[in-house]
Amino acid sequence: MTRPGGRSARVREAVLAATYAELVEHGYLGLTVENVATRAGVHKTTVYRRWATIDVLIADALDQARGTDWPVPDTGTLEGDLIAIADEVVQAFTDPAQRAVPEAIVTAALHSERAREAKRDFYTARHTQAAEVVTRAIARGEVPEDTDPVELVRLTCAPLYYRIFITGEPLDHDTARRSARAALAAARAGAV
Amino acid sequence: MTRPGGRSARVREAVLAATYAELVEHGYLGLTVENVATRAGVHKTTVYRRWATIDVLIADALDQARGTDWPVPDTGTLEGDLIAIADEVVQAFTDPAQRAVPEAIVTAALHSERAREAKRDFYTARHTQAAEVVTRAIARGEVPEDTDPVELVRLTCAPLYYRIFITGEPLDHDTARRSARAALAAARAGAV
Repeated sequence: MTRPGGRSARVREAVLAATYAELVEHGYLGLTVENVATRAGVHKTTVYRRWATIDVLIADALDQARGTDWPVPDTGTLEGDLIAIADEVVQAFTDPAQRAVPEAIVTAALHSERAREAKRDFYTARHTQAAEVVTRAIARGEVPEDTDPVELVRLTCAPLYYRIFITGEPLDHDTARRSARAALAAARAGAV
Repeated sequence: MTRPGGRSARVREAVLAATYAELVEHGYLGLTVENVATRAGVHKTTVYRRWATIDVLIADALDQARGTDWPVPDTGTLEGDLIAIADEVVQAFTDPAQRAVPEAIVTAALHSERAREAKRDFYTARHTQAAEVVTRAIARGEVPEDTDPVELVRLTCAPLYYRIFITGEPLDHDTARRSARAALAAARAGAV
């Protein structure tokens, strides 16, 4: 009798959990297939067979994250929803455990096609989910009908990621609110 | 008799030029102090003495870029100037030679304090220069007096960097124009 998922799914679970933990402790440059195998309690050839490189490990960890539930905010107003989305980004990147994988994937994607695809698929999925708050707001008449829902989500998040990866400036709730409000103002003016 | 700059400056010039070339060819993960020394025609101990790690090399290359002239656009309108700034980002990241250092610094900054500081200083300098287009526009009455000039520059560039490093979506002149116009609309609405 095989349990749902079976051994293969349990190995993936253990290996990806170990990948997260190693990334949190050592970062991208300190990640090795050997250490992941040791931490996961599996033989390193088992890891190599399925995840040939650390970029594949990171990409698979992001694929797994993409599949987890992400609650789309529903505060009743578009402003509230966009601020909630922005706050979620701020919280994720101020938690070392949560930010480990997105930080690593940015590096991995610069030189691995597999990682680049995982990153693109992850953000496409999240944007599509989050865009629901804009679609609802269009129905309520809060922003013009021809507003591009995904572009409004991008504009809300972009200034936060710009601070995280580019300028290195600190993030807080005020930064989140400011980003969301600027994006919303652009949308109301018909520029999104 | 010593020439201006002297041997030390010539070595730095050769080593940083070699760093650029190596980054363009091999990327961050393929960069080694040895290969930089060979390409620059200097002994590797000379490089190690002054630039202990590849992160220090990359940080110094960015410091050098910060010191080069960057022509602030002056098209006569804020919209034209912001589009010109956005276009410059698009051009830089579609040219493999130009994008090599900013791409590498993002990775280097994730685990090197020296690289993090170089990145922060570079973008602070560029933002301060670019903010001049907003200061002029405030004087012309194009945007409210309390518009934050640096924040408007950030909002113009952020959606482009978001595509480059996060979603991996393509960039072109339309993306640049769209980013600039959304940022400007937010500013006109008093949200920047």
